[in-house]
Amino acid sequence: VKNNKFGKVAIIGMGFMGGSLGHDLLKLKTCTHVTGLGRNLARLKKAKKARACTATSVNFEDGVKDADLVVISLPVLMIPAVFARIRPHLKKGAVVTDMGSTKSDIVSKIGEIDADRSFVGSHPMVGSEKTGIANLKPGLYKGGTCVVTPSGRTDKAAARVQAFWRALGMKVIVMKPGEHDRAVALISHFPHLMSFAGVSMAGEIINKAPEVIGPGFKDATRIAASNEDIWAEIFLSNKKEVLRCIDLAIEELENLSQAVYTNRVKELKDYIRKARLLREKVR
Amino acid sequence: VKNNKFGKVAIIGMGFMGGSLGHDLLKLKTCTHVTGLGRNLARLKKAKKARACTATSVNFEDGVKDADLVVISLPVLMIPAVFARIRPHLKKGAVVTDMGSTKSDIVSKIGEIDADRSFVGSHPMVGSEKTGIANLKPGLYKGGTCVVTPSGRTDKAAARVQAFWRALGMKVIVMKPGEHDRAVALISHFPHLMSFAGVSMAGEIINKAPEVIGPGFKDATRIAASNEDIWAEIFLSNKKEVLRCIDLAIEELENLSQAVYTNRVKELKDYIRKARLLREKVR
Repeated sequence: VKNNKFGKVAIIGMGFMGGSLGHDLLKLKTCTHVTGLGRNLARLKKAKKARACTATSVNFEDGVKDADLVVISLPVLMIPAVFARIRPHLKKGAVVTDMGSTKSDIVSKIGEIDADRSFVGSHPMVGSEKTGIANLKPGLYKGGTCVVTPSGRTDKAAARVQAFWRALGMKVIVMKPGEHDRAVALISHFPHLMSFAGVSMAGEIINKAPEVIGPGFKDATRIAASNEDIWAEIFLSNKKEVLRCIDLAIEELENLSQAVYTNRVKELKDYIRKARLLREKVR
Repeated sequence: VKNNKFGKVAIIGMGFMGGSLGHDLLKLKTCTHVTGLGRNLARLKKAKKARACTATSVNFEDGVKDADLVVISLPVLMIPAVFARIRPHLKKGAVVTDMGSTKSDIVSKIGEIDADRSFVGSHPMVGSEKTGIANLKPGLYKGGTCVVTPSGRTDKAAARVQAFWRALGMKVIVMKPGEHDRAVALISHFPHLMSFAGVSMAGEIINKAPEVIGPGFKDATRIAASNEDIWAEIFLSNKKEVLRCIDLAIEELENLSQAVYTNRVKELKDYIRKARLLREKVR
């Protein structure tokens, strides 16, 4: 990867994801200038000290004006409004992407105001239950998968966004926003929701007999240690698909309940065997 | 731990759990004689070759007659019948325990025929999604927790059973059978059931777009790669508590569905925060 292939990069939001991104961009020399933007000056200073950016600003309008590529790394519900705010100040030809966990809402809302076809949605699927610049993780993106959701209108910008994630060592998959949202509801959003519910149900055991908790429960609920502000917003921003998953899960649970109640051992074994074979396909 | 503190040990069922147990007993010199019992001679030979036992037999009656301590390492629904079969052949003063994942059914069924008060239920909570002697894991028990469920009638035998698990490096907790079953339904049986359901729901993604699956889903569903014969039986043997958990989960999901549907963001954040704080208590 050549220096400055992506010119100047601005990252809006220097938390765990944005900070780790800036750090890798500079370390891999994917670019030489990373402006870290945010509302909290003290936090931005920490990001600079951690080598997650080369410059900082609390003024988004000013901070994006020289950028060739802008990455919005903020909670999903804020992304369209922040795009609207920076749009008039973007350099001609600049490309904007995000790292939001849902795409339909963001892509359609931004599509309405994106006259220059500069925005292409991204979802680098690396995450962690960690938050904040203090947890910055070098190499976070390398080897992970990034879904990019061009809208047809934005194919040109999409090529640059795809190259950007590939330069960080990511595997890029192109999906339609709706297709992405259905997939992540099933493989991320619902598992998080169920993990929160599973931990809540076991609250008394966790408080009174924690010694009986084994590695299975720990693995199954690791993602329940995730940030409430981020996840409440993700559920709401992918409402349709999350509700669909909950309905589906209730149906599955009702069927399983009937099978257990009526001792249908063969049906249970078949159900579990199918799940096991599916799970064994996941590496 | 002195040699032969537990005399001769017989293990009925030389699969993953039984095989790993025999191996550790011999390696730690907790005892010098381990008879591996089972129905399949070829498998027993493999166990002996893997140093999981010093002798083998397919004749349970004959195999237990010299044993000071018998461990039944079989699927939960088989345990009471196997106890009934070996009981007339036990040496005077011999103690019998098991490794079943549920306790109420087993302890009450065996209690009815256990005139000598020789049986004390155990549940070493170490497990794995692995099965079979080929996956034998040295040190499987060390550092884990074992729940022992004496019935009051069996306090004397319970002391030996507790000492036995402690000699393997386990932490021992005493619980009532019903208390144990409620706890494991919440922290093991329901999480497994939900993990099977979560994988089933995501079947299409697993088959068609496996690249989007990240570490969160992998962790949350690792236990879905568990054996169907074992788990169908566990659900049925702990029916009352498993059904109670499913009802509870459906209630939680219905509440969460309403909160998402009506955009109750504060309620969602509070729910997730409480779950996160609980999960952070689990080490």
